[in-house]
Order: sequence, then structure tokens, then C-alpha cells
Amino acid sequence: MYLQNAWYVAAWDHEIGDGPLARTLLNQKIVFFRAADKSVAALEDRCCHRAAPLSVGRVVDGLIECGYHGMVFNAAGKCVCVPSQETVPATAFVRSYPVAVKHRWVWIWMGEPELADEALIPDLYWHDHPKWKMLGDYFHVKCHYQELIDVQLDNTHSKYVHPGSLGNDGAVATPPRVKLVGDKIHGSRHMAASDPPPIWRKAADYKLERADYWLTWIYHAPTVITFDVGIAEPGTGAFEGNRSKGITVYTDHGITPETDDTTHHFWTCSRDFRLEDEGLTKTLSGIRNTFLEDVAICEAQHATIAAFPGAKMVDISSDAPTIQARRLLRRMREREMAAASESRASQ
Amino acid sequence: MYLQNAWYVAAWDHEIGDGPLARTLLNQKIVFFRAADKSVAALEDRCCHRAAPLSVGRVVDGLIECGYHGMVFNAAGKCVCVPSQETVPATAFVRSYPVAVKHRWVWIWMGEPELADEALIPDLYWHDHPKWKMLGDYFHVKCHYQELIDVQLDNTHSKYVHPGSLGNDGAVATPPRVKLVGDKIHGSRHMAASDPPPIWRKAADYKLERADYWLTWIYHAPTVITFDVGIAEPGTGAFEGNRSKGITVYTDHGITPETDDTTHHFWTCSRDFRLEDEGLTKTLSGIRNTFLEDVAICEAQHATIAAFPGAKMVDISSDAPTIQARRLLRRMREREMAAASESRASQ
Amino acid sequence: MYLQNAWYVAAWDHEIGDGPLARTLLNQKIVFFRAADKSVAALEDRCCHRAAPLSVGRVVDGLIECGYHGMVFNAAGKCVCVPSQETVPATAFVRSYPVAVKHRWVWIWMGEPELADEALIPDLYWHDHPKWKMLGDYFHVKCHYQELIDVQLDNTHSKYVHPGSLGNDGAVATPPRVKLVGDKIHGSRHMAASDPPPIWRKAADYKLERADYWLTWIYHAPTVITFDVGIAEPGTGAFEGNRSKGITVYTDHGITPETDDTTHHFWTCSRDFRLEDEGLTKTLSGIRNTFLEDVAICEAQHATIAAFPGAKMVDISSDAPTIQARRLLRRMREREMAAASESRASQ
Repeated sequence: MYLQNAWYVAAWDHEIGDGPLARTLLNQKIVFFRAADKSVAALEDRCCHRAAPLSVGRVVDGLIECGYHGMVFNAAGKCVCVPSQETVPATAFVRSYPVAVKHRWVWIWMGEPELADEALIPDLYWHDHPKWKMLGDYFHVKCHYQELIDVQLDNTHSKYVHPGSLGNDGAVATPPRVKLVGDKIHGSRHMAASDPPPIWRKAADYKLERADYWLTWIYHAPTVITFDVGIAEPGTGAFEGNRSKGITVYTDHGITPETDDTTHHFWTCSRDFRLEDEGLTKTLSGIRNTFLEDVAICEAQHATIAAFPGAKMVDISSDAPTIQARRLLRRMREREMAAASESRASQ
Repeated sequence: MYLQNAWYVAAWDHEIGDGPLARTLLNQKIVFFRAADKSVAALEDRCCHRAAPLSVGRVVDGLIECGYHGMVFNAAGKCVCVPSQETVPATAFVRSYPVAVKHRWVWIWMGEPELADEALIPDLYWHDHPKWKMLGDYFHVKCHYQELIDVQLDNTHSKYVHPGSLGNDGAVATPPRVKLVGDKIHGSRHMAASDPPPIWRKAADYKLERADYWLTWIYHAPTVITFDVGIAEPGTGAFEGNRSKGITVYTDHGITPETDDTTHHFWTCSRDFRLEDEGLTKTLSGIRNTFLEDVAICEAQHATIAAFPGAKMVDISSDAPTIQARRLLRRMREREMAAASESRASQ
Repeated sequence: MYLQNAWYVAAWDHEIGDGPLARTLLNQKIVFFRAADKSVAALEDRCCHRAAPLSVGRVVDGLIECGYHGMVFNAAGKCVCVPSQETVPATAFVRSYPVAVKHRWVWIWMGEPELADEALIPDLYWHDHPKWKMLGDYFHVKCHYQELIDVQLDNTHSKYVHPGSLGNDGAVATPPRVKLVGDKIHGSRHMAASDPPPIWRKAADYKLERADYWLTWIYHAPTVITFDVGIAEPGTGAFEGNRSKGITVYTDHGITPETDDTTHHFWTCSRDFRLEDEGLTKTLSGIRNTFLEDVAICEAQHATIAAFPGAKMVDISSDAPTIQARRLLRRMREREMAAASESRASQ
């Protein structure tokens, strides 16, 4: 069972244009469309009349018209027109979901609407800030979303999964510092005078053999992970915040369950230097192939877990961050269920 | 559970030539072939010996020879030859089904053979009458057969599903008259001086803004629906039977369950005017795309029903004919089961 | 449940080169690779750490390295390196399987390792003997493995399944002699002055109308069948062993369950005459299409068995060898289970 009272990344904002967008999130079929004020609406993707999906209908004046018998629904999910009769039955409505558009991503709240606080959405201002240049994409991945989160939180995989881009020996040799901060987990590896990963070396046009390499991340449970990574000349204070002798890149991951066996992966890669340098943009675009390597290993892992039901896993030291993340998620889910049962008891 | 004691459309007559035809009907795998007298035989598509499908065998002199070890079966399903031995085991037979070929369609009776009365097959004489010209086709549809029947019986969908061909405002605004006649349901919409649907306007080469438009149908439960539709100059008596100032088209649908999730859709479109006009034939052939629009909405609806198990549907006034049809079908099925249990009790 | 204490054909030896080979056998996912001494190792295809399949990793110096976090396993399945830490957990190992490479095929023992006796592997020396020329291939077949064994053991099918190559009237008319020899079944048809099958006639460049045709086989239960077949001038003593007036061909089948619905089919066709004759090689290569005809009928049969659950089969006389083979297999399985339960009781 997924955490319900949370914001999930549902789409890129440009995916929702003039027509409806159908997307399954947390096993629920949802249709997205633009209301008259261009805000994004999200409804259960099932007409309450004869169960046609609303996503095969049309958006007319900010309302969605069912493609079967023409019933019209507003952004709140209320049916406002039944073409073949004068009145609309009181029971004619579909579930609507709170939606927010922030920094290029469309966020959806899957739980109780009154708890949907936009302040809980992670601040990813660099996605559309004039001093930053962001590139990004979307992958449909055949794995459970926690497997894709695990791959982000344990960077010892990079040497083996991404030898040509992010891999290095330093991350394998250096255990991360990990800290729980509310419902977030902060992690960091500071690798002084380490072997810099090929992609950052190329992005920095870096000539030296060794670099101070940092790999800092925040897991915004349940499904967003932000990375601050980069390399700088050894001993120039990069770990303490002086980035003047190096480069800084932010990569972000919105990892949303579609079904128990499939996951939406929204990701970005942002920089605050040489914004106009197209060669650099091309270098950083290579991160797409790197992230596809994560997709491949997670899909293989997911299929293998399914093929060996009940088989035990052997933990090693470097699993600490992923084990901690799964514990946090379990606690959040237990808290949510306790609150729900309390709320039922008090009614 | 499907109604068993009923004729279902199984195939176009031209589909059964020199070789066997495999088709699944009501979840049963059946092989069709021509007996020596060119009549059509239908057998369970499974050799009683080692379960090879007879449909991968050969038709030899009106008998079907299994493609595995050469056992031969006649049209009654009796094994008449086991090549590797002199005698045929008494238990070597497969189920046979009553079949009738009438007006270009092959009909199969799925229930008790002694109840198979060909007089119960709807009379579709215009399919091969010299004063009529018929065109038709077959679709394999990924929905439950009742969903495809519903779409025929509620024509308020045309404005939304078929805006370019059959759609008009009149059908949405005009409730149908519906009448139960034995195991049939008669329905009709008379739309005086209404907006004529694009395809009939084009077929009639109709210049006026308004036409008397009729949409008359008979549901021959469980699975055949015949339509008498057309347009005429307003006030010229078309509703009362004078079609001299308009055009009449018959469209017919044989909608046969394949499995619980798939349906065979046999359909025709027949006319009794300008039989040699090839431009007209081409116009009417466009109904194929119209009926594919039904396929698309029914498949989308079927998938959505599966995705929301147990979700309630909200009824509106225009659902009257489909609700009545489902009730009739339920009564017929209850009657059939009561007769079967009575017959067992009396044995 | 499959017989566990048995050798199964797992692969052609050339399939296992520098990298890992993933293959599912008896519902178990297994990875094959070459150890440092070039012997073949077989491990459970699942890293014990986070369940990535080892087959997406790399073979390094005869060890297999997991493609996710770089854990390294030896041919015995023991983890010998965890890159991110000094020590290897005692529980870090995966199951290994006994493997033998004999006469071009890789054999795997699926049961208790201490019972794996290579002497039990059928001797197929002609696969790589200088006086023989062998050709062969592999098919992935969508049927249960016993269906593919049945088709080999009842050659009355050839007239119907292989009319253009192996089919003849003689095999239908001549019941085989069948004899149980330990866990093997020996079968033979001696067809004196019979109609020779097209492919052997062509291979022998045979001009006469009639030939002595023999079809002799050994079923090495559970899954290997070897054939000695050929034709000779009538009355020249071929049945007694004088093959000087005819040709002898050996065909072999290694039929290994992949899953309950899919089977690996390894086959060969070997000759001891005109080894350099390329036209003859081409003629015998035609057996590939013949064996594909078996695949087609077995796949059709398997699908039909699934579609008619619980339907009875009618036996005929020519089923004797396949019935005997299934009985033998059942006895072997019962024997295996009795031994296992005895061994548990004595512990």
C-alpha cells in the first residue's frame, strides 16, 4: 500500500496541452486536463455513467466531455451537463484530485484533499530559474518504485552500472554520512582528491588526475530525490561551499508508482555555469543514457525478485541509506494509517 | 453465463471454403468445415485422441482428418477411421453443433440440439435479394458482447462517437419509443424536420437543411440487431411508410461472444436504391469507419470497467433501451436454466 | 513436479563463450559461465545481495561479477568479494549446480549434487567422432516437454505431420516392438520392403520402389531420445546389422523443460557416410523443417489441452510406447520422492 497523503510527480507541465492526458498513478487511472484558467485538473478517468474513460473525450472550454454520450464534467469532478436530458443526477460526479504545478512538474496529492499543502512540495526552483539551465526527460520503467529509489540512494552501484559516466572508485571506498531530518534523509559523500567520474570531468573540462568530488543528496520521502554533485580542484574548499574552483550540477528524480510493477521516472539535470555552452549541454545530455542504465538494472532486478518469491536478501554495509529510507517510509505509512483509524474512531 | 439455446452468427459463408476454419464462440473452441454435400459442419476443435486441434488437420472428401495421427471424423463428430488399427473405439467422437447457413451468414446453435429450430433465425433476406445490394465485414473486438449491443441500442452516442457520419442533434433530443414483443425489442426514433446525419445526407445527395429522419431497430435477443434507417423530405409520409421521397438503408449486427473479453462483430449495410451506383457504394462503405468508432469506444469502456472492479454506474433516461435489453436477456437465461433444471428433475 | 536427480541437456557447448548465458531450466533461473579452467559453471541466476540477475554481470577471470554492486562469485556459488567492504558475509552465496560437457552438449544435474554421476549421461559419441558428421540446432517450443517426447515415441504421426520428409505408410501399418531396459525404453520398427520416407530416399540416392526401413530408438528417461534410422535394399540383412547396402542416420533429441508451458529442444542428425558430400549435408539439413513440424503440432496440442481442462483422452493401440514412457517416468519420480522422504526420516 502506497503512502496516500503525499505529493507525487504526475507529469511534465508541457505534457498537458489542449487535450486530455491519461496516466495511471498508484494503480489509479487518472485524466489530466487544463481548466478554463489553464490550471491543471485531475479526475478519475472513468465516466460515472457507463464507464468510458474520460481521457478519450474532448476538452471543451476548460471542461471535459465524455466521448461516449457527451456528459460534461468540471475540474471538481461534478457533472454539469447530460445532453439527452434537462437535469443532472445528484450522483453524477467523479473523484477529483488536488494538483499543483511547480517548477515545470505537475504534482498530484493522492490522499485526503484537506491535507494537501503545497508547501510540502520540494522546492526545485532551479528547474526554471534564469541563472540555471535544466534538461530532463521521462522514462517508463518496469520495476517497483522502491527499486528505483534504492538505486539512487546507494551510489556504490555507479562503478558497475555506469562505468563510462558516473562510475568511480571513490564512491565505493567512501561510506556516506546519512542523517534523518524530519521526513527527509540527507546523505553525502566527500571524496577528497579522488578519481573524478568521466562525465563531470568532461563537463568541467578537467585536466588534473585528482579532484575533490562531492555527492550530496536529499531524499524527500516518499518519492523525490535531489542531488548536488560536482568536482573541484583538491583543497579549494568545495566541501565547505566554495565552488569557485569547480562545477556544480543538480540532478533530481521524481519517482512515482504507476502500478506495483511499473514506475514513472521524471528526472532533470541542471547547471549554473556556462549556460550558453551547447557542447556542455550535449555532454550533460549524456546523463540520459546513464539513467537508462539504472532502468536496465532495476528492470532486471524486479523480474528476478518476481521469479524467486520469498528469497531472502543478504545485507552489506553500503545498504545503510536504502534500509534507512525504507524504514522511514514504513513509519510514515504507519503514521498515516494510525491517523486514518483515529479519525474514523472519532466520527 | 451465456444463453445457450440460441442461434449465434458464427461466420460469413465465404469464410468456410475447402479447408477448416477455427473459431472460438462463447468460450468454446470450434472447427467449421464443408461436408461432402457442401453443408457446413461444426465440431469441438479437439481430437478426442491426443487433443490436437482438428482445425490444423485437412478436409478430405467432406470429412476432417486430424493433423497429428490421421484420425478421421464425420460431420456428426463420429470418428470413422483410426489409420493404425482396424477398429474405431466406441468412445472416439467429438461434440458436434447444429449449423444453418442463411442469407450469407453461418449460424450456430450452442444449446441442446433438439431445440435448434431454424425458424428462430432472424430473416435477413435483403442480404442476398436481387433488389438489394449489401456490403459488410467482420471485426474482432476486445470487449464483452453486451457492451457492443449497448452501443447499438442507445443512439444518443452517435453525436459524440460518430460526429462525421451518423451524428446529429435530433437523436440526442428525441427519446425513442421502445416496445417488448416476445423475445424481441422494437425501438424507433422519428425525428421530423431534423438535422440529417452526414452519411445519409451524402448517400441521398440531399440538398435541404432539414429532413424527416427515422431510426428504427429490432433487437432479436440475444445477439442480433437490425436497423431500418433513412431520411426523406419533411412531411412526405416517410414515418408512415412512404419512402418515395427519401432513402432507406438497413444495417444489421450479429454480435457473438468469443470470450468474456472479446467479441465477434459481423455487420452489413444494405440498400434498395441505385444498386449500380459505385459512388454510392463507396459512400456507404464509409460505415465501416463509423462502426470502428464503436469498436474503439467499447474497447476503451471494457478496459475501464475492468480497471474499476465493482464501481457503480449512474443511469440516465436514455439508458432505457439498454436496461430493458439486459432485463430481457436475464429473463431468457433464467427461463433456460429453469427448463434445464426441470428437465433434469423429470429424468 | 519434474524428476530432479537426472541429467538434462542445458545448452550447446558453443553457447557458453566469454560472457554469461542465462537459461531457465525446470522453472529455475540459472546462469552459465566458463570458470578459469574453461569448465562450465552453473549458478542460481540471482545475486544474494539485492537480487540482480548475475547474468547481466561480467565474467572476470573465471568468476562472475554482479552488474549492480560488483559482488563476485566463484564457480561453487561462493561470494569471494564485496567491493565496498573488507569482509564477505558468511551467508553470501548462491546455489550451484553440477555440470558436465560431453559430446558438444552441456548437461546439468538438477537434484542432489552428491548423486550426480557423469556415467549416467547417454553416450552420444558420434556428435564429435571423426568418422561421423553431425548437424543440429535448438528450438524454443511452447509446449510441455512430455508432449515433445510423445511425438518422438509414436512414429505413426510421421505420415500426417511430415508427409514430405519422414512420412510413410509402413510406420502406420507396423506396430513397434517395445522393451523396458532399466530406466530406458528400447523401441523398433522393422519395415521389410516398405515405402521409404522421402528424406532417406533422397539421402541414399535410392532408386528402388521398396526398401527395408528401420526405425530404432532408445528413450533415456527422462528426456533424451536417440534414433538409429535408415533404409537398405530389401533382404540384404540390414535389420540384423549389415548396413553395407543402405544408409544409417542417427538423430538425437535432448528435450528439457524450461517452464510448465515451454521446452528447450536440442537436436542433432548424424551420419557415418559420404562425410564430405555437401549436397547430402544440405539434404539432411532439411530435417530442421521436419522437426519444426513437430514443434507446430505440439504447440497446437498444448494450447488445446489448456483450453479443455480436464477433458479425457481416448487411447488407441499405437499409444503403447508413449503410455509406457509416462509410466516409467512416474515410477522414477515416485522412487525419487520415496528416497528423499527416507533420507529425511533417517536424519
